[in-house]
Amino acid sequence: MIKVGIIGGTGYTGVELLRILADHPLVEITVITSRGEAGTAVDDMFPSLRGRVDLCFVAPDDAALQECDVVFSATPNGVAMTYARRLLDADVRLIDVAADFRLKDPATWQRWYGMEHQCPDLLSEAVYGLPELNREEIKKARLVANPGCYPTSICLGLLPLLENGLVATDDIVTDAKSGVSGAGRNAKMGNLFSEVADSIKAYGVPAHRHRPEINQTLSQIAAEPITITFVPHLVPMVRGIHATIYASPQAPVGDIQAIYEARYSDEPFVDVLPANSHPDTRSVRGSNTCRIAVHHPGQEGRIIVLSVIDNLVKGAAGQAVQNMNLMFDMEEKTGLAGLPLMP
Amino acid sequence: MIKVGIIGGTGYTGVELLRILADHPLVEITVITSRGEAGTAVDDMFPSLRGRVDLCFVAPDDAALQECDVVFSATPNGVAMTYARRLLDADVRLIDVAADFRLKDPATWQRWYGMEHQCPDLLSEAVYGLPELNREEIKKARLVANPGCYPTSICLGLLPLLENGLVATDDIVTDAKSGVSGAGRNAKMGNLFSEVADSIKAYGVPAHRHRPEINQTLSQIAAEPITITFVPHLVPMVRGIHATIYASPQAPVGDIQAIYEARYSDEPFVDVLPANSHPDTRSVRGSNTCRIAVHHPGQEGRIIVLSVIDNLVKGAAGQAVQNMNLMFDMEEKTGLAGLPLMP
Amino acid sequence: MIKVGIIGGTGYTGVELLRILADHPLVEITVITSRGEAGTAVDDMFPSLRGRVDLCFVAPDDAALQECDVVFSATPNGVAMTYARRLLDADVRLIDVAADFRLKDPATWQRWYGMEHQCPDLLSEAVYGLPELNREEIKKARLVANPGCYPTSICLGLLPLLENGLVATDDIVTDAKSGVSGAGRNAKMGNLFSEVADSIKAYGVPAHRHRPEINQTLSQIAAEPITITFVPHLVPMVRGIHATIYASPQAPVGDIQAIYEARYSDEPFVDVLPANSHPDTRSVRGSNTCRIAVHHPGQEGRIIVLSVIDNLVKGAAGQAVQNMNLMFDMEEKTGLAGLPLMP
Amino acid sequence: MIKVGIIGGTGYTGVELLRILADHPLVEITVITSRGEAGTAVDDMFPSLRGRVDLCFVAPDDAALQECDVVFSATPNGVAMTYARRLLDADVRLIDVAADFRLKDPATWQRWYGMEHQCPDLLSEAVYGLPELNREEIKKARLVANPGCYPTSICLGLLPLLENGLVATDDIVTDAKSGVSGAGRNAKMGNLFSEVADSIKAYGVPAHRHRPEINQTLSQIAAEPITITFVPHLVPMVRGIHATIYASPQAPVGDIQAIYEARYSDEPFVDVLPANSHPDTRSVRGSNTCRIAVHHPGQEGRIIVLSVIDNLVKGAAGQAVQNMNLMFDMEEKTGLAGLPLMP
Repeated sequence: MIKVGIIGGTGYTGVELLRILADHPLVEITVITSRGEAGTAVDDMFPSLRGRVDLCFVAPDDAALQECDVVFSATPNGVAMTYARRLLDADVRLIDVAADFRLKDPATWQRWYGMEHQCPDLLSEAVYGLPELNREEIKKARLVANPGCYPTSICLGLLPLLENGLVATDDIVTDAKSGVSGAGRNAKMGNLFSEVADSIKAYGVPAHRHRPEINQTLSQIAAEPITITFVPHLVPMVRGIHATIYASPQAPVGDIQAIYEARYSDEPFVDVLPANSHPDTRSVRGSNTCRIAVHHPGQEGRIIVLSVIDNLVKGAAGQAVQNMNLMFDMEEKTGLAGLPLMP
Repeated sequence: MIKVGIIGGTGYTGVELLRILADHPLVEITVITSRGEAGTAVDDMFPSLRGRVDLCFVAPDDAALQECDVVFSATPNGVAMTYARRLLDADVRLIDVAADFRLKDPATWQRWYGMEHQCPDLLSEAVYGLPELNREEIKKARLVANPGCYPTSICLGLLPLLENGLVATDDIVTDAKSGVSGAGRNAKMGNLFSEVADSIKAYGVPAHRHRPEINQTLSQIAAEPITITFVPHLVPMVRGIHATIYASPQAPVGDIQAIYEARYSDEPFVDVLPANSHPDTRSVRGSNTCRIAVHHPGQEGRIIVLSVIDNLVKGAAGQAVQNMNLMFDMEEKTGLAGLPLMP
Repeated sequence: MIKVGIIGGTGYTGVELLRILADHPLVEITVITSRGEAGTAVDDMFPSLRGRVDLCFVAPDDAALQECDVVFSATPNGVAMTYARRLLDADVRLIDVAADFRLKDPATWQRWYGMEHQCPDLLSEAVYGLPELNREEIKKARLVANPGCYPTSICLGLLPLLENGLVATDDIVTDAKSGVSGAGRNAKMGNLFSEVADSIKAYGVPAHRHRPEINQTLSQIAAEPITITFVPHLVPMVRGIHATIYASPQAPVGDIQAIYEARYSDEPFVDVLPANSHPDTRSVRGSNTCRIAVHHPGQEGRIIVLSVIDNLVKGAAGQAVQNMNLMFDMEEKTGLAGLPLMP
Repeated sequence: MIKVGIIGGTGYTGVELLRILADHPLVEITVITSRGEAGTAVDDMFPSLRGRVDLCFVAPDDAALQECDVVFSATPNGVAMTYARRLLDADVRLIDVAADFRLKDPATWQRWYGMEHQCPDLLSEAVYGLPELNREEIKKARLVANPGCYPTSICLGLLPLLENGLVATDDIVTDAKSGVSGAGRNAKMGNLFSEVADSIKAYGVPAHRHRPEINQTLSQIAAEPITITFVPHLVPMVRGIHATIYASPQAPVGDIQAIYEARYSDEPFVDVLPANSHPDTRSVRGSNTCRIAVHHPGQEGRIIVLSVIDNLVKGAAGQAVQNMNLMFDMEEKTGLAGLPLMP
């Protein structure tokens, strides 16, 4: 059994990791930390885990963490980088579900996250944990930067177009919609039920931290610098991201449906829907699947890609477990076979 | 008192007309028809109107309708055109809240609505009831085509840009999000609570009936043919439309915030928010206001316009009453002063 | 024009008072206080009020408040009692929308609210502002304790039964359901969208602060001590309270529908539905109406009363304005005629 | 592998059976029928099952069904009784997830379901599939009547009280709240999102079909006739039932928490929460667990039991699979270990 530790287990990513890992046949959760809830039984805070997770939160504890085979960091941004060096030195692999290791350039990171990076030397070693792009590197990684939820949905939606050079790289618009759980389990007035329900709004139009991450990944895929237009929206639902992507073909693009199906035919967690489909986010609720539909109305004008994920699974905890499976040479789908909850 | 009739009062537009008109100081509702509910008391079907609307639905009845000063048709598409000629001949003005008179070209109408138009000669007479664009014509109109909900939010969002020739007319993307009431009060499985709640999806990507209407109006504004990219989405909320509009400046555009504020400074129902705002749909819930925010991050790249309305008010019944006020030379805001319900 | 002040205008009761008072033809809001938001424009915080409320929040300021004719206190519990004496001494009438003056016994108040009462002598003067019970006293009051939302819905539901001695006073069960706005506009984790949506739960089963208030009022009505069983529930909706009341007839009760209709026939804000009705909370959303249905299945066993209100209107701000109208000898419905927003 | 057939697979119970059975290691779904959707691929209708269920709906077909080991009937009421005799004669076991075999008395059944029962002789053979009550009988059954969702939550909540004779049997009030999926996947106007969202209402106060079923089961448990007061409510959530039960102790009841814990200590799917808990329905969303909290404030007055289930799992498809496991001598939890989806 692989020994797993979780740093910061009281947020939505933390409880989702617990949900998934509690059913994973090859791992054992040995330690889960929380500075504020040390001593609290995990299932007192999360009754949904009663009878299945028999742990208490403990204060952050290097000794216990260093006995793990792998540690997931599900903390706010800026915490994982304070543990990373010591864990790696103790031969513990680290999967950061926050953003500390996602950007390659320390200066860019500092600009967007408002603090100095504490181990910039590890940024180049860290592997960006999008298996559909970097599977082989992930298998060999000590340190994985788990992608953000928006970047996952958008990059999977654009991958076949950019790999094949089919669209103009300077004319991509992505209009993304997220459920409220993406904002985390923090007591913020703006995320109260009465503030968010029965309404929709855009946010972060001038700037959103996922933008440089998206641009970095798309630029890697296209092998040229890309800057997209990106507007996120807050939708009155708990889980789910829906990315609507508008791209302009460079030239006649041929059978775009076939291109998508071919690209993802061997991917266990990307499902290309039949032509003319409109995926809803509930079709992936609770599962690690990304469902994609591609449209090219009249074979002219913009290509429109619809890409949906569960932000807490493929957009966070599920993809982190997928990465762990790869890093420890387990079957990639282990523990991730649960079907979406619909309705 | 102006005598008002309503054809087809059992849908969401019908009940919203009743809500607004019941508080309008200068009108009297004299007849409301419903083929299926003739004889039913209106407030048996809509208890929210108890004590305020003391009418029964009656079968469609030319005599009663022809004694009205104005008739609102809140029926499905294809019904108003069967009444229009007789009402106009009886000197009754007609405001069609459905789509029968929105498109100028009968062939286009037939292609999108799947039936032959029964009075194509009236299409040229009909005035498109967007007061911010056609106020003077509306004042003189006998027949007003009340705009669709998506077109209202999108055209108001783009009006200042297109009137001033500021953006490329061949590169406009509009990603729109609607509450479920926009789908009407019909027993369709796809609009059940359990099908729609806690989820989001795009729909109608290959084709949506509001697209030709949007293109027609934008082309009128810009005085050149425009075809936009338009994708609507279904959001788990009852009311509200949020249009996110992406447009490419043709040249340095100057102080775009000032341009918007100037264009709408005298408009009673368009509110330009301060710079860097993100309107939520609840800020207009139940009111006839359109709130708009305009962004031009870094003064480079695309201009992003956020435009919100209540689809049942400014997107339907409220705008219809605004048009009636104009047609009968009443103060434009009469009966439309109710504040948004927030939260 | 009556000069109105509001203490604590940043919560949901505060913004609802603003919504209602902004449309009230006989009042002028002259001051609105907020310790934390002094200097902020009201419509910056609440864009729904743009163009209609042109005030800034100011720090609590005795001089400004003492120039008002009436002050609404929409603060947390324990604040109004620190202002009451000074306001009354300055001939300013006070309507406390919180709980400081609802209980007649200072010891009971202290036990439930966890602090010592600062002006217990005013408790006997304060009039409990349920117009259907205490209309004449309200008209003469200087100090009105506006009822809680649960007590309003429950007491109106039970009034005809208890006034007529029809049911056993020791066998009343009230199962109540509230929307989330009842929990206020405070950044609490338990009221986050992702904690509350798509779920229901009971809360406060061992003890809820509205219980002594309900018991006190029901005991006044019945003229004997009453202790009810009361369980509140949190429902994933923004507004609305639904009280389901179970009472055991003492003897044959006769035509209970007629009894309810007679009791409330002259009440402007209580609507008794026809027999066999099931009111939904949306039928009163945004309005000051309480709708009640009474059932006595088979004329045997328990009487079941269904009572719905909008917790922010008849359960808070609307009832407060109704009380103000009575205190200043205005028509009771002034400013409260808005119809429910449905759907 | 056990061969499973499903009659009527297009409703919410049908798709939930598919979700659970697709992950069940010891069964194989061999046939799924739908009169209206014959020929449609199951995953065309339910994209959440793509890649996991590779079947098409077929027209009802005795031959195919008779080759199964067990058939689940997930049809509307009145259909299973037309298949039952032929299936049993072919040695196929039948689990009816609808109501055809729940009531023992044919006359009562006919009165509540409005049709004549077609195989009243099977009513006595049918075992009521509540494992916590009838486990041994279920193991030997050919025909299981799967309980309704309300009855499951209520009977599990009352079982320890009634088995031990602790409460008055003529003074039980149950106020129950259900998510909208309980109303089924039928195109009914009353279940549209815009009719149900942001609102709550009671329904069926004069009469609800689950009442005789509840009374029958509680009478069996108590070994005396019981008639409860029962009011169901419709809550704007997809899944979940919350039963709030009020019962009057007959005498000092002792440590009621310990009584509940002892009664359910060996039950795999009933979880008694610690004292003073308030279960929310999301804590069981997607799982087969019933969570119960019991309160006795002040050790006086009524006992209050809070009981939550997922109506589609423990209230329908999950309990049906639990029954199948028992009937085929499999470990009771097989295929039912999935954790709740929270948030």
